[in-house]
Amino acid sequence: MAKKVKGGLTTPKGFYANSLNCGIKKNKNDLALLFSKAPAKAFAVFTKNKVKATPVIVSQRHVKNSLCRAIIVNSGNANCCNGKNGMRDAVAMVKATANGLDIQRKEVLVASTGIIGKAFPIKLVKRAIPSLIKGFSEKKGPSFAKAIMKTDRFSKEIAVKIKLGACVVTIGGAAKGAGMINPNMATMLSFITTDAKIDKSALKDAFNKAVDKSFNAISVDGTMSTNDSVFILANGQAENKTISKGTAAYNKFYKALEYVMVELAKMVVLNGEGVTKFVHVIVKNAKIDKDAKKIASSVANDLLFKTSLYGEDPNWGRIAAAVGYSGAELMLDKLDIYLGDKKVLSNGVRVNTDRKSLRNIYKKKNIEITVDVKLGKRRADFFTSDISKKYIDINASYSS
Amino acid sequence: MAKKVKGGLTTPKGFYANSLNCGIKKNKNDLALLFSKAPAKAFAVFTKNKVKATPVIVSQRHVKNSLCRAIIVNSGNANCCNGKNGMRDAVAMVKATANGLDIQRKEVLVASTGIIGKAFPIKLVKRAIPSLIKGFSEKKGPSFAKAIMKTDRFSKEIAVKIKLGACVVTIGGAAKGAGMINPNMATMLSFITTDAKIDKSALKDAFNKAVDKSFNAISVDGTMSTNDSVFILANGQAENKTISKGTAAYNKFYKALEYVMVELAKMVVLNGEGVTKFVHVIVKNAKIDKDAKKIASSVANDLLFKTSLYGEDPNWGRIAAAVGYSGAELMLDKLDIYLGDKKVLSNGVRVNTDRKSLRNIYKKKNIEITVDVKLGKRRADFFTSDISKKYIDINASYSS
Repeated sequence: MAKKVKGGLTTPKGFYANSLNCGIKKNKNDLALLFSKAPAKAFAVFTKNKVKATPVIVSQRHVKNSLCRAIIVNSGNANCCNGKNGMRDAVAMVKATANGLDIQRKEVLVASTGIIGKAFPIKLVKRAIPSLIKGFSEKKGPSFAKAIMKTDRFSKEIAVKIKLGACVVTIGGAAKGAGMINPNMATMLSFITTDAKIDKSALKDAFNKAVDKSFNAISVDGTMSTNDSVFILANGQAENKTISKGTAAYNKFYKALEYVMVELAKMVVLNGEGVTKFVHVIVKNAKIDKDAKKIASSVANDLLFKTSLYGEDPNWGRIAAAVGYSGAELMLDKLDIYLGDKKVLSNGVRVNTDRKSLRNIYKKKNIEITVDVKLGKRRADFFTSDISKKYIDINASYSS
Repeated sequence: MAKKVKGGLTTPKGFYANSLNCGIKKNKNDLALLFSKAPAKAFAVFTKNKVKATPVIVSQRHVKNSLCRAIIVNSGNANCCNGKNGMRDAVAMVKATANGLDIQRKEVLVASTGIIGKAFPIKLVKRAIPSLIKGFSEKKGPSFAKAIMKTDRFSKEIAVKIKLGACVVTIGGAAKGAGMINPNMATMLSFITTDAKIDKSALKDAFNKAVDKSFNAISVDGTMSTNDSVFILANGQAENKTISKGTAAYNKFYKALEYVMVELAKMVVLNGEGVTKFVHVIVKNAKIDKDAKKIASSVANDLLFKTSLYGEDPNWGRIAAAVGYSGAELMLDKLDIYLGDKKVLSNGVRVNTDRKSLRNIYKKKNIEITVDVKLGKRRADFFTSDISKKYIDINASYSS
């Protein structure tokens, strides 16, 4: 079993971090650096949005090398829709980082988050990079995690340790919110570090699977940012026997990685401005994985469902409607729906329930919704929240 | 040219209507009837939701006969997820109407709107049908339109007249809102009547095309109800020369029908509770129709865009992001975006604009957003609104 420990990105061996205020924002750290002393196997998953921010394009190229050592991140400006100037600036940001660290440019990944379509303040960033590098340390994981926060109510970090033979392998991570969750940045960024020694293909496999179970299984507001990115760096410093696919060590590593990423994803949901409820949507017995996910995502994103959560009004018809328009294969006369452990729909027909007990379920902070499709054996889990008036307040005047 | 006249559903010749309170709701009319003295060619478009309310299933069957004479509608109960009892009740509602009017059951269409998963009050409905029929008249179109309202701020009716040769043909319509637009009913219903004599295939063609341009081109909140339905009845009482496809008369009729339906759809958007802005999203020069519609719908439904409208914050990056995740074919380096007549994005690169003038555009009640894809020649128009705190208020406690 993985053991949760205090810490985050720099808890695994050989990782350094730092952050500072370079002047994009007032009084808040807006530039952060993550560095691995050894070349690290790197993978990333990026936004599927066709309007991609420039740093996403640059990182997509660099991560193909698969060995990276640094990630430089700014907040306050997305560097998106800035054309050639944007590309020049993203490259300059990488170059300044590589020069300062004395590593190759292609070993540097870059991420930005903030407003779209604003000239990128490259001068501020370049000027700050030397001090950023000068101050980095193995203790500054929390500083990195704080720099990527904005209106977040708490810093989102986690670390776990597992034993592989005689070696201890550590996985750490940090994340920032997205959309309604953290509307002032609108983008979801996440960084995972590990000192595990692991096969390239095993790492890729584990990472992609865990992204699917975590950051691709949270509902924000149905929008998709131009800058969303999740990164993993594995630098091998734990000196364990190389993990390969299909082994017990791989399974142990995967479970720990999934745990780290799911916990971070849950924190992203829970942390959101205006969020009063945390909801776990479970879809059971769908015919295929895709259908299970479609239904879970449809319910988790349904605006009427989310507002009824906020109002603690157990109007489960909205869940049934969201299941129905999900596009998944469905037979109404097999469909069951549960609020908590109370069945409200059985084979497509309402169950006579005591309204007060349903309302009590919606009054809780943690709510579980189960949709049983009874057409197969596939399951999906999704995490979501309510939508509150505060969400509107915050998002109504972001760029102003 | 079509001439707009005062009136609605019963303005075309040979249509009768009535409504009353049967006791589902307190003090508000909740049961309505539309009747054509002659058998009318009928078509309908229903929700694509796989969780369909029972009246939808019954009407789907009956409309296949293509000749119908009556539509019976209740509000306050969706008759959805009620299983065999629900079917028994929808059929009983049709039967009571057919018996009262002395017509065949298959000539009766039925629609319900309201809460999902509540036992259907068939006794109240059956008891009221005789008085409903007794009181119907050619002057009670407005009464029908009012019965399908709930928190609507105004009744949504329209009528137009066109001249075809020596004959005057009239088209009338009424609608009720959907989702955020009219959250207390959550369902969009619309009824169109005409006294035109028209080929079955010509009517079908014109109706489907007009549905696509109108009720399928408004954004509500991205949800899809279990009861959404749009009906048309054409009873031929104008005695015009039968309209067939490919004729000048058809074109004239189609234009008038599209006008009626687009105006009703716009009213649905404008009328919504909490709506402060009316937005026309225009997508130009997409490669295929489907892409144009995907982009328009993605922008019109984007929650971050809709909240920025409410806050009068011209944060157009959210429009670019919504275009990007629409799934349509796209090249960022060809993409242009306009707020009103101000270009803000040109070939994927931000245009230096005066922020104040952009803000002034968002301060208006009517806003036009144009997305020029420059990959082909297809266009789509979509109508949407902002999302306000009032929306959350209303939807947070609907069923309570």
